[in-house]
Amino acid sequence: MAITLEQLAEHLHLSVFGSAWAEITHVAPLDKASSGALSFLTNRHYRRFLATTGASAVILSADDLPFCRTSALISPNPALSYCRAVRFLVTEPPTEPGIHPSAVVSSTAAIHPSSRIGAQAVVEDRVVVEAGCDVGPGCYLARGSRLGRGSRLLARVFIGHDVVVGRDCQIQAGAAIGGEGFGFARDGEAWERIPQLGTVRIGDRVEIGSNTCIDRGALEDTVIEDGVKLDNLIQVGHNVRIGAHTIIAGNTGIAGSTKIGSCCQIGGMVGIVGHLEITDHVIITGRSMVAHSIHAPGVYSGGMPSDQAARWRRNTARFRQLDEIASRLHTLEKSLKKDS
Amino acid sequence: MAITLEQLAEHLHLSVFGSAWAEITHVAPLDKASSGALSFLTNRHYRRFLATTGASAVILSADDLPFCRTSALISPNPALSYCRAVRFLVTEPPTEPGIHPSAVVSSTAAIHPSSRIGAQAVVEDRVVVEAGCDVGPGCYLARGSRLGRGSRLLARVFIGHDVVVGRDCQIQAGAAIGGEGFGFARDGEAWERIPQLGTVRIGDRVEIGSNTCIDRGALEDTVIEDGVKLDNLIQVGHNVRIGAHTIIAGNTGIAGSTKIGSCCQIGGMVGIVGHLEITDHVIITGRSMVAHSIHAPGVYSGGMPSDQAARWRRNTARFRQLDEIASRLHTLEKSLKKDS
Amino acid sequence: MAITLEQLAEHLHLSVFGSAWAEITHVAPLDKASSGALSFLTNRHYRRFLATTGASAVILSADDLPFCRTSALISPNPALSYCRAVRFLVTEPPTEPGIHPSAVVSSTAAIHPSSRIGAQAVVEDRVVVEAGCDVGPGCYLARGSRLGRGSRLLARVFIGHDVVVGRDCQIQAGAAIGGEGFGFARDGEAWERIPQLGTVRIGDRVEIGSNTCIDRGALEDTVIEDGVKLDNLIQVGHNVRIGAHTIIAGNTGIAGSTKIGSCCQIGGMVGIVGHLEITDHVIITGRSMVAHSIHAPGVYSGGMPSDQAARWRRNTARFRQLDEIASRLHTLEKSLKKDS
Repeated sequence: MAITLEQLAEHLHLSVFGSAWAEITHVAPLDKASSGALSFLTNRHYRRFLATTGASAVILSADDLPFCRTSALISPNPALSYCRAVRFLVTEPPTEPGIHPSAVVSSTAAIHPSSRIGAQAVVEDRVVVEAGCDVGPGCYLARGSRLGRGSRLLARVFIGHDVVVGRDCQIQAGAAIGGEGFGFARDGEAWERIPQLGTVRIGDRVEIGSNTCIDRGALEDTVIEDGVKLDNLIQVGHNVRIGAHTIIAGNTGIAGSTKIGSCCQIGGMVGIVGHLEITDHVIITGRSMVAHSIHAPGVYSGGMPSDQAARWRRNTARFRQLDEIASRLHTLEKSLKKDS
Repeated sequence: MAITLEQLAEHLHLSVFGSAWAEITHVAPLDKASSGALSFLTNRHYRRFLATTGASAVILSADDLPFCRTSALISPNPALSYCRAVRFLVTEPPTEPGIHPSAVVSSTAAIHPSSRIGAQAVVEDRVVVEAGCDVGPGCYLARGSRLGRGSRLLARVFIGHDVVVGRDCQIQAGAAIGGEGFGFARDGEAWERIPQLGTVRIGDRVEIGSNTCIDRGALEDTVIEDGVKLDNLIQVGHNVRIGAHTIIAGNTGIAGSTKIGSCCQIGGMVGIVGHLEITDHVIITGRSMVAHSIHAPGVYSGGMPSDQAARWRRNTARFRQLDEIASRLHTLEKSLKKDS
Repeated sequence: MAITLEQLAEHLHLSVFGSAWAEITHVAPLDKASSGALSFLTNRHYRRFLATTGASAVILSADDLPFCRTSALISPNPALSYCRAVRFLVTEPPTEPGIHPSAVVSSTAAIHPSSRIGAQAVVEDRVVVEAGCDVGPGCYLARGSRLGRGSRLLARVFIGHDVVVGRDCQIQAGAAIGGEGFGFARDGEAWERIPQLGTVRIGDRVEIGSNTCIDRGALEDTVIEDGVKLDNLIQVGHNVRIGAHTIIAGNTGIAGSTKIGSCCQIGGMVGIVGHLEITDHVIITGRSMVAHSIHAPGVYSGGMPSDQAARWRRNTARFRQLDEIASRLHTLEKSLKKDS
């Protein structure tokens, strides 16, 4: 598909600098782009490539325009404009609606005719799949679960019984939504499973990464609000609530009953203890351990950067003496104060 | 289903305080319960809800009884009594025994007629599935594996060849039991896989969470003893042994050949180095890195709580100088000692 | 299968010490071996077992020979010789080529007749499976993906559209290769997905563990070079490149666009920030957080060993004062310098 830069600008409501008739056929990174390519600049670090790029046009901010030697589309939000340009330029192969003959679908499930149920999928009793959904190969929708309009399960996704997924969600391969929460009561030395009677409720436009796990609630539901984005291999414990538009990077774990506010940004491999409350607009950098509730918006950190092994070993050995070191310092301070 | 509090008390072997004829129809959390609800108190933090709860009855300890204004069941272990009350009140839909027509089952597999093999499951040669098992949709039991009486695989579980699962186990979606262990021999710059000849042996009443991985042993077996509870996204390396009734929270990783004792409690995102021994009754709090064997029961920690980003940055910068700081302190102490 | 030690020595190009006619029937660990067993010694820690082992022969280095009281094969690399001995002694059951009748295979897919497509697998349009491949039960190869000669997908592996897997690779159960990368543009409070137009390219002899995730690139490809070994539950973000023969242990996460060199060794639960460069021959010990590029080969650490809980608590409390402690020390030093 080829369009002119002007057509693209019109679609994106942006203004063109340079040749409105430049033909755009595809997208490419600044440093690898050739004629016909649309590129974009969102990271100042790559501004130097503006001087040498072969792209026919670049989406960039007004600030970066003076450095640009090719045609450009000026955007207040180049990343977002780029998203939309790609959607306009690159068309995904359409999904054929219908139920694949190898799928096993209960006669009491309600599948909208515009939706697809892929090969080897299993759809149990009383499941509802609304219009325009795409349930990929090998997915399993357990009894009573619901999939809102336009939602897409890539492949091998597990949706537990009575789980509700909103509209326009996208769930990657292997995600497990609605497994039993991890709750046990002691019985002498042994542990007895506490029945998990809640479910999982997922809002609209939620994205869930590959092999991420969200457990069903114990008595109430685990809740993922609208617009939440979860990366791969994340663990969400039972009764957790994640507020709207919060984004969480991979390998992070959130223990049971913790409530996270809206518009938070949580880095990778963060561990959040159970039964906490984290308010809205909190940023937690990668690898932090959050052991206490956070009541004020702001940036919080807990990851310790690595070092050369020999120095690291010496410093960690001292860490084991840190309280003693502090006491010795205090003793010294007192003795000097007395002296003076 | 509705029963009287007295009937419930009799079933649970507990004594009633208040109205023995109160009708119980369901369970609910203290702060959301209304008439007909049974609730429970296991966490002192929620004791304040006893004053206002609408529950018809509450399971609690004798200590909490004075604060309770509704009917109550007194239990030495309210959490366990609650478990059992729920099992009595809430009946799960029964599983239909039989092999789903879409499942692929070897003619040499022995499936007990009281067990279910779900849709799209694959059961290979010489597999044994004992009575009362439930093999959910999309599970795969490789050749020679065994599933003990009453065990349940939720969905898409992988059970490798010759793996043995005991009785009354429950394994959540996507768990991978019996993948090849991660063992390689150097061959110049390259690595050559060391064949993994062992398998995985899992005891009775073991629970394994979603997408958790347990690798098969290199020469001997990886062993998970009776009553072990593993949360989601846990990694168990080859030749690991986990002792009876040990419970491990999500995202934890245990490297190869480590032996963990019985009745341990290991928090989330803990990393345990390989070839260690951890004795019985050890508690390891969340996010610890265990780099040495632990020979004495007790509580061990290693997670560093997060802080405001600016302060965290200053402190981690100082951490890189910690050994030097300790040396400077020592110099000061010496010089002052000399002076005095 | 029984062979003489001499036959084995000839196959492995090693020299025999002791009885060349000893009959070898199986392999076993040193401390559990009985007559007929071949054992091996690669870890000095177990040298003491040489005195008492019942093995008929042991593969070991020349250094360890003086301690050995049984027959031996002398190897400059006992682990590698052991690998090859096992391959010689233990034959895996052969895989029957052909497409299982329950598999769903597109008529436009090219499956070599020597390859197997297992039960319940799904193979989409234009997929290419070269000779000698084994696609296990429940795997899903999306449109346009390719599997090189001799590669093996254990079970339930997801291979995204247009992903290229090289020769002689082995991918464990539940791995998700080619899910959408985690990239979003802000749109007010909400996030909009950035289309991920790249794919994943995997070299030859790569091994990928259970439930490990490798995301497809945003514009360019995510690349895993020849001979890379990835353990279970690893997260590889979009546009990452991992150099040849690098080996990475379980639960590690690598954020987007980071480039890792060749011949690196990365421990378990390591977190690597995005957009970094790590040069060749870097060793990163378990649990490190890598927050900056590494330009020099060497060993780097970042994991803090756990401690008794009470002492740990005191030391972490002091850590929050570390910058202040360092300042107080500096003040003391200055005041003493002035005095003297």
